[in-house]
Amino acid sequence: MKILTINCGSSSIKYQLFDMADESVLAKGLLERLGTEQVSLCHQAKGAVVQPSCSAEDHRDGLGLILASLVHRDYGVIERIEQIKAVGHRVVHGGEEFSGAVRIDPKVIRAIENCAQLAPLHNRPNLAGITAAQMALGSAVQVAVFDTAFHSTLKKVAFIYALPYEWYEQYGIRRYGFHGTSHQYVAASAAEMLGRPLNELNLITAHLGNGCSITAIRRGKSVDHSMGLTPAEGLVMGTRGGDMDPAIVFHLAANSDMSLEQINEALQHRSGLLGISGLSNDMRDIVQAGEDGQERARLALEIFVHRLKKYIGAYMALLGEVDGLVFTGGIGENSAVVRSKAVANLERFGLRLDGKANEAVAQGQAKEISAADSEVKILVIPTNEELLIARQTLALVGS
Amino acid sequence: MKILTINCGSSSIKYQLFDMADESVLAKGLLERLGTEQVSLCHQAKGAVVQPSCSAEDHRDGLGLILASLVHRDYGVIERIEQIKAVGHRVVHGGEEFSGAVRIDPKVIRAIENCAQLAPLHNRPNLAGITAAQMALGSAVQVAVFDTAFHSTLKKVAFIYALPYEWYEQYGIRRYGFHGTSHQYVAASAAEMLGRPLNELNLITAHLGNGCSITAIRRGKSVDHSMGLTPAEGLVMGTRGGDMDPAIVFHLAANSDMSLEQINEALQHRSGLLGISGLSNDMRDIVQAGEDGQERARLALEIFVHRLKKYIGAYMALLGEVDGLVFTGGIGENSAVVRSKAVANLERFGLRLDGKANEAVAQGQAKEISAADSEVKILVIPTNEELLIARQTLALVGS
Repeated sequence: MKILTINCGSSSIKYQLFDMADESVLAKGLLERLGTEQVSLCHQAKGAVVQPSCSAEDHRDGLGLILASLVHRDYGVIERIEQIKAVGHRVVHGGEEFSGAVRIDPKVIRAIENCAQLAPLHNRPNLAGITAAQMALGSAVQVAVFDTAFHSTLKKVAFIYALPYEWYEQYGIRRYGFHGTSHQYVAASAAEMLGRPLNELNLITAHLGNGCSITAIRRGKSVDHSMGLTPAEGLVMGTRGGDMDPAIVFHLAANSDMSLEQINEALQHRSGLLGISGLSNDMRDIVQAGEDGQERARLALEIFVHRLKKYIGAYMALLGEVDGLVFTGGIGENSAVVRSKAVANLERFGLRLDGKANEAVAQGQAKEISAADSEVKILVIPTNEELLIARQTLALVGS
Repeated sequence: MKILTINCGSSSIKYQLFDMADESVLAKGLLERLGTEQVSLCHQAKGAVVQPSCSAEDHRDGLGLILASLVHRDYGVIERIEQIKAVGHRVVHGGEEFSGAVRIDPKVIRAIENCAQLAPLHNRPNLAGITAAQMALGSAVQVAVFDTAFHSTLKKVAFIYALPYEWYEQYGIRRYGFHGTSHQYVAASAAEMLGRPLNELNLITAHLGNGCSITAIRRGKSVDHSMGLTPAEGLVMGTRGGDMDPAIVFHLAANSDMSLEQINEALQHRSGLLGISGLSNDMRDIVQAGEDGQERARLALEIFVHRLKKYIGAYMALLGEVDGLVFTGGIGENSAVVRSKAVANLERFGLRLDGKANEAVAQGQAKEISAADSEVKILVIPTNEELLIARQTLALVGS
């Protein structure tokens, strides 16, 4: 069965077409800068990359371009778009409504709309993608897969903030958690690598990409997580600052000439690695600049790792006993220096890195990097959110 | 030598008069509701408590009442106020200026005024107390002891937020840390109890009172701490919420009818144990109500402990090796249930409680409550900020 996965941003669409017979990727690509004159499509299929010239006003136009590429006589991979039997949509915020993937119907659409208040920048484009796919692929089953769903197992002790309780009841203010598809995918892969059932494992999964989050998993279930009401909380990220004294917002509002909107904008887009270093939001640049002697880049790396290590310790304490620590995401998969610093001096708590194995991780490779006598297994596992979306979509097609 | 310690709030003055020959407390008391018609003074001396009727408009009047009590013919403890050779003032925010106690001179006053922007509710009353004491006790040496000073050893990796770096340079936005006098006092006491030099010890000190904070101490020095720019960050407190997604502020500003001031007020005064439980900011009430079956009180206790345990784990990971965990403050000293839950299931990480010893801690008693085979010693140590202020004042009198 051919399944298309779609991940819509405000001006972008990421897609992959899977043949679920063998879970192979027939084509994938990224459409960017929707609604501008610089619309660009990068389409990969049959081992080649094409960048057809194109124009698209909105997600509906954009999906049209993508479908046209999939059936294109030269770089297409299917003959008719009706061969796509199902579409799996990544939806960022499922609120408290959704604890797993669902077939999309009008009730589901309304629920996603209701959650949009909690993540307007994300859920609205996700809805635009769903509408476009319903129109262009009327016969295909549409499935929503939520970034929050894996964390629906959080208990109140982990998801209620120490704030007036009525804010939870009235405004839905609680920890939801994000990157769930990634955490769920690597947790399942870790269980395979360790040769043990997931529901017997306590894991800490660190998704370190441009967004960064970390999950405490007890017997296969998410029990705590670093992101909160929004993806702004927790670890240091590329441009987001993660944890901070909430009073900073009030202090800046009172003592700077920034408006609340400008402060929020700075927290989202000018903080994190970029904010500390003043150089880049990309860990590769940060590590290089640090090696070149740039003090603030070195500091950005140290703070990133300091904060990551605190979360690893926090979740060790919560879990009491940890079977595995998993690194994933662009930084987690590719930065040996981040991994090595994050687990340094944790030998007393059962984490012992195999330095050589850590250095030897090849791009895209899943690998155990702990020493043979490490009580806690340390793993690098490339994430694959699209594949998990496709799998969850497949599981719902028959139901 | 007689030393008076003074701790001024916006409408209160706490004081203790020490005879430093044997560090005994000659008198102590609390003046409250300054500037209202319900001014009250509770003065303890010679084993008795007196509550003289009184009126006082401001800190100057208030200090006058206190001094009159200290020399009172019935319940006074000295003959002339000139016998007070030095006054130690608690000052909350010392910013980056002060890494220890200092004799107060006009330059110091200006520096404390400069820090008032960072803690207006605290430093302004502290300054009022200093001015009053200078006028009433002109011949005494005046010393400022800062709540932030013990944390002046924090390195950038711990005190720089992942925010635009220029906010640190321009607005002083960084982690300062508070409750330093308490953390420093119990760290020194822990070293005595363990019979080892403080500068060889790694400790985690948890000050759990109406305000709560926790410090990671490496070789005697504060290296990380839960409170930040202000005392709003970190653990769950009586009425403060501690760590939260900073986006909650923006979300409420956009989606509720609360003003920024009202949101801030709620975070300071209606959050924490009170916010979750809807009942009380007092842990004793919370524990009792939880035992009586009140669900949200039970939840408040669980969240308090969950968050405390995460910090203990975070600091274990930072320190790599921990010699002692210290509980202090009203809750830390008196709540066996909080202590027991906070260290439950940490045996793998070297913490093993002696349940009986934990239950048997008497009020005001310093006690080791870890099992004999616990790698990490767990201690209960009553804090005594006033005594440390008096000691630091004494140390400066001769200099």
